[in-house]
Amino acid sequence: MQGVKVLAGVVGAAALLGLGIILGHFAIPKGADSPAPSISASQDLDLGILETIMEQLDASRIRENLRELSREPHLSSTPRDEELVQLLLQRWRDAESGLDSAETFEYEVLLSLPSQEQPNSVTVVDPTGNILFSCRRSEENVTGEQEGPDVVPPYAAYAPPGTPQAVNAAKHGVAGVLVYTDPSDINDGQSSPSQTFPYSWGLPPSGVERGSYLEYFGDPLTPYLPANPSSFRLDPDNASGFPPIPAQPIGFEDAKVLLCNLQGASAPETWQGALGCEYRLGPGFRSDGNFSADSQVNVSVHNRLELRNSSNVLGIIRGAVEPDRYVLYGNHRDSWVHGAVDPSSGTAVLLEVTRALGTLLKKGTWRPRRSVIFGSWGAEEFGLIGSTEFTEEFFSKLQERTVAYINVDISVFANVSLRAQGTPPIQSVVFTAAKQIPAPGRSSLSIYDNWIQYSNRSSPVYGLVPSLGTLGAGSDYAPFIHFLGISSMDLAYTYDRSKTSARIYPTYHTAFDTFGYVDNFVDPGFSSHQAVSRVVGNVLLRLSDSLFLPLNVSDYSETLRSFLQAAQQDLGALLEQHSISLGPLVAAVDKFEGAAAALDERISELQKGTPDPLQVRMLNDQLMLLERSFLNSRAFPEERYYSHVLWAPRTGSVATFPGLANACSAAMNTAPGSAAWAEVQRQLSIVVAAVEAAAATLRPVADL
Amino acid sequence: MQGVKVLAGVVGAAALLGLGIILGHFAIPKGADSPAPSISASQDLDLGILETIMEQLDASRIRENLRELSREPHLSSTPRDEELVQLLLQRWRDAESGLDSAETFEYEVLLSLPSQEQPNSVTVVDPTGNILFSCRRSEENVTGEQEGPDVVPPYAAYAPPGTPQAVNAAKHGVAGVLVYTDPSDINDGQSSPSQTFPYSWGLPPSGVERGSYLEYFGDPLTPYLPANPSSFRLDPDNASGFPPIPAQPIGFEDAKVLLCNLQGASAPETWQGALGCEYRLGPGFRSDGNFSADSQVNVSVHNRLELRNSSNVLGIIRGAVEPDRYVLYGNHRDSWVHGAVDPSSGTAVLLEVTRALGTLLKKGTWRPRRSVIFGSWGAEEFGLIGSTEFTEEFFSKLQERTVAYINVDISVFANVSLRAQGTPPIQSVVFTAAKQIPAPGRSSLSIYDNWIQYSNRSSPVYGLVPSLGTLGAGSDYAPFIHFLGISSMDLAYTYDRSKTSARIYPTYHTAFDTFGYVDNFVDPGFSSHQAVSRVVGNVLLRLSDSLFLPLNVSDYSETLRSFLQAAQQDLGALLEQHSISLGPLVAAVDKFEGAAAALDERISELQKGTPDPLQVRMLNDQLMLLERSFLNSRAFPEERYYSHVLWAPRTGSVATFPGLANACSAAMNTAPGSAAWAEVQRQLSIVVAAVEAAAATLRPVADL
Repeated sequence: MQGVKVLAGVVGAAALLGLGIILGHFAIPKGADSPAPSISASQDLDLGILETIMEQLDASRIRENLRELSREPHLSSTPRDEELVQLLLQRWRDAESGLDSAETFEYEVLLSLPSQEQPNSVTVVDPTGNILFSCRRSEENVTGEQEGPDVVPPYAAYAPPGTPQAVNAAKHGVAGVLVYTDPSDINDGQSSPSQTFPYSWGLPPSGVERGSYLEYFGDPLTPYLPANPSSFRLDPDNASGFPPIPAQPIGFEDAKVLLCNLQGASAPETWQGALGCEYRLGPGFRSDGNFSADSQVNVSVHNRLELRNSSNVLGIIRGAVEPDRYVLYGNHRDSWVHGAVDPSSGTAVLLEVTRALGTLLKKGTWRPRRSVIFGSWGAEEFGLIGSTEFTEEFFSKLQERTVAYINVDISVFANVSLRAQGTPPIQSVVFTAAKQIPAPGRSSLSIYDNWIQYSNRSSPVYGLVPSLGTLGAGSDYAPFIHFLGISSMDLAYTYDRSKTSARIYPTYHTAFDTFGYVDNFVDPGFSSHQAVSRVVGNVLLRLSDSLFLPLNVSDYSETLRSFLQAAQQDLGALLEQHSISLGPLVAAVDKFEGAAAALDERISELQKGTPDPLQVRMLNDQLMLLERSFLNSRAFPEERYYSHVLWAPRTGSVATFPGLANACSAAMNTAPGSAAWAEVQRQLSIVVAAVEAAAATLRPVADL
Repeated sequence: MQGVKVLAGVVGAAALLGLGIILGHFAIPKGADSPAPSISASQDLDLGILETIMEQLDASRIRENLRELSREPHLSSTPRDEELVQLLLQRWRDAESGLDSAETFEYEVLLSLPSQEQPNSVTVVDPTGNILFSCRRSEENVTGEQEGPDVVPPYAAYAPPGTPQAVNAAKHGVAGVLVYTDPSDINDGQSSPSQTFPYSWGLPPSGVERGSYLEYFGDPLTPYLPANPSSFRLDPDNASGFPPIPAQPIGFEDAKVLLCNLQGASAPETWQGALGCEYRLGPGFRSDGNFSADSQVNVSVHNRLELRNSSNVLGIIRGAVEPDRYVLYGNHRDSWVHGAVDPSSGTAVLLEVTRALGTLLKKGTWRPRRSVIFGSWGAEEFGLIGSTEFTEEFFSKLQERTVAYINVDISVFANVSLRAQGTPPIQSVVFTAAKQIPAPGRSSLSIYDNWIQYSNRSSPVYGLVPSLGTLGAGSDYAPFIHFLGISSMDLAYTYDRSKTSARIYPTYHTAFDTFGYVDNFVDPGFSSHQAVSRVVGNVLLRLSDSLFLPLNVSDYSETLRSFLQAAQQDLGALLEQHSISLGPLVAAVDKFEGAAAALDERISELQKGTPDPLQVRMLNDQLMLLERSFLNSRAFPEERYYSHVLWAPRTGSVATFPGLANACSAAMNTAPGSAAWAEVQRQLSIVVAAVEAAAATLRPVADL
């Protein structure tokens, strides 16, 4: 799991501070060939097989997978990462429980790594250069796993090298950025060693969150092209998306020394945290503190850009009836350190799901209707690189043939409730699966019934339902939904938000994210891991095996209607002032609703009889391709890969179509007739065209 | 038929002349539901039905269609254009011979029209402003059809208004452009009234070719968006693609007066023509001619931009088995004047084909396997506007569902031989059809056997075959192939090139392109029109009705191999000097060939048995979608709509992949490591990725 856009936001906020060091929090929430049964073109989901798979998904096997996957640090493109490639190949090629085939796809990608010879450092120095204080260069070795040559020291990937020194940079001349996570944001305020790991799931004071500070996703040197060795590469000096100034993350233990010694005006109330002092803005250190007022903070960053090989592992089960329709299920393999939660909790589930399916496949008792492709992506932590290169290499065929993409990165953030993010067409199949599986630890309730207690919303169509989140760019689903327009989802077990306000599980991207951490604190007994494996297995089998695709496209009507209403309520008057009418958008949304409802009816009718497989195929193509009709590769020329006009990043505050929201927000204070208002009109036309195209996709197929 | 790119080239060349008037030639070659038979998912082409249709396509009906269509001038968006919309609707809604449905789709598009109040003029004036000579403002009324309010006077559409006056403009300060067509280029040298229409097919001395001088195609104000009334429109001042300076076409009769009076150095040999004098470059008039040396040419252009409604008419025959697969067949409806040849000869054929098919449909004896969509496009002469707006409005569904696009604009340039342009997958079906139909006037020969006598090439795969031309942007196929990536073709009957070197039929875009012209000179008896209707009907029926799509994708191997060889032979050494290897391209082409050959074999095997309709559908999807895999919407950011990496405009001289050819040509004289050489590498990577993607599309569908 990876925080691309999020981090760009932090850097931006930091620059506003006008300090040589930054002392804002890191407080952005994160969503963070075998024997075959006989083939019939009418082959439908077999509920007995589904039940068998549900039973065979085994918590203790997931635990053993996790132990092996997280045994050693496996940063992208290291020898241990390569060993895990081999482990995946071996499992997926197993004669008893493997897939039809598995192979690696290697790319040459630009990573950013700290120098081994010149460690990054953060110090306080007096005017003569004497070091008064040094921040830790590594985390405290609490469990014996935090030291060693394979533990990458904390750093901000892609932050450029440099040695800025200041506590009083010019207001708009920030020279460098320090980032830390406040105990109030990650530990519910707890900050002492005895209150944190290994005594609780809390982040130890020395813990430092690593991360990628790249603005875009994908290999930075080969945008829109697969990063094959022979591919054209930008000169790194011409590539965009790198942070402009050095940055370095530190632990809250060290942040306390720096922050609690600052002088100057008090920081705003919302910036105050749990370090036990009043946070001040500087400039300079207070005279009654640890450092003389003329001391400065020196940040030395020696990160280096390196071209490294990174592999995706792809495993395939060939579909029996429609092998050219793909259900994709993937997760990344690379971690920052041991990565027990991130990403190995997901890979442990992936391996258990493939084992269960592979076993049935190799026995000859099952073969899916459609092909299933499993992906273990490389270099996700550096910016979703492996998955993005995969979508670039197979752009056409994936776009034409893929039914849906399932992502399970961190499978268990916490062991309380299901969390699902996705586009509307996948809501119903996730609900169906969640209703069929008992909630871990609450076996009288289904996962669905448990979920609705923790996160729900009132749907105008269905009443109270669990709340499906939207997809940002926090994991490998991003290129699938935003670039290819494939209906996607991200599944996990998560927190009870009444019990913790931690923005993510506390040891995220630190050397404390270990097997023991998961085993003792995140999911003892692994029943939540098992629950996630069952939801994924259930959803996957429904997508791969159902005669009619379980993609409920009419659930998009609710989204479109709500986006439209937000535009009408919050932007309507403003638009009217500028003679921009929402009328064409109203008409388009009405058309979509009508076409979706009619298609629903048609499906219901067909399901009553014995439909011709070719008729079903045509209908399924409409369901599969609906998501594609929302793509416009020219809508957001400055947003690399983002083409989906409903789910591109929204910076404007109105919960409506992102292009419209952002354009209005930019035009708001410009004169009538400005270029910014022209862009509002352009964005509105783009949305209207996309919704019209979506309606056209759902209409009877011989109509225009 | 329309000359977009071509004209931009002429304007460019003119600017180099450094004259206030240009005197280069215009010498670029231009290329309601009905009863249904019982439905079976295995429904295949019925040769009996095909034979019936071939028999029913009737020359005299085509002649009557043409007489009606060309009875009055029908410039885009005029009342007569609208009457023809109604005529098409009436024919396509006819109870006895109509289609399942027909409707109009109206757009609001930016046209350029001459002012009625202030006619454009070209005069020679003396220093006091006395007019010494005026070019004609309209063509001579030779047949009684060249006068009247509906005959639009000759003009250069989209040329801006202005009144430049010069015969000696600064070398790089061309103030205006005059365009004429030399008798040597259009009339095989003939220039006297008695040698030209109405005494021959030659262009009368007063004839002037109208045309659009827009650089791009599509409505100029709504690039990439359908030009609906509510769509966002560019401010015309910000729109690109208009000529920068006034331009006006004149007849060769008037050009002679201007040109034969010039003084100065002789024009190059290749610029000399058949006006009966030596062509000189100026500056200024010779003292012993009609004008004093201090006279100047005054060009007054008063064209106006106007938003006008333009309709497409779409007619549909619903497919019986795969209604979601479309075969498209279209032509434009608008003309410059009467447009008997351009475009009505095509529309006359279109109406006869729809009559023949509609009759069988309404009788209940036939319904195609796939849907057939017929299009009558508006505003083509102004820049393929109607067809482009159609592809913008239905981008997603057309791209996902269209098997092929057939264009027949001018159906008969001359009555000698078939001419076909298209992408490689359509070659075989055109050959098959052409072999089945007798050549007009040579009934012992098939159209194929006749064709190969007039235009042939030696194929490394097949030996001597008729030569299939490539698709530029001369008619409405352009948005289908370049923007949507749909396999497309343009069909017509054409000249014996040993008999004429006219760059196009002589009355092209003049008021002499009338019914009488066609009836007397182009195709007396209309047997060539009939032949084209049969080829189109045959190709269309094979595409709509064959169980296996008759798209021979392995014919792309020959193209790729020849592009590769040209790159190796003509660019290889240069690329090597810059450390750019063609190795990855060689590997990609090899992969494509292998995958295409294997797919061919698979098709042959399946055809031997009774294949499952779903299997055939999957295979057909590969054939249909192959062309799409060559698209890259980011390959040519400056070429509006052009996304096909094999058929984008090529300016470089090497007959290879256009992006590579153009980039090499731009880099040729730059230093190693220049941005231009980086672009060569980028273009090479784009081509490699596209060919790899194409190979991936053809591989067995469960492989990556």
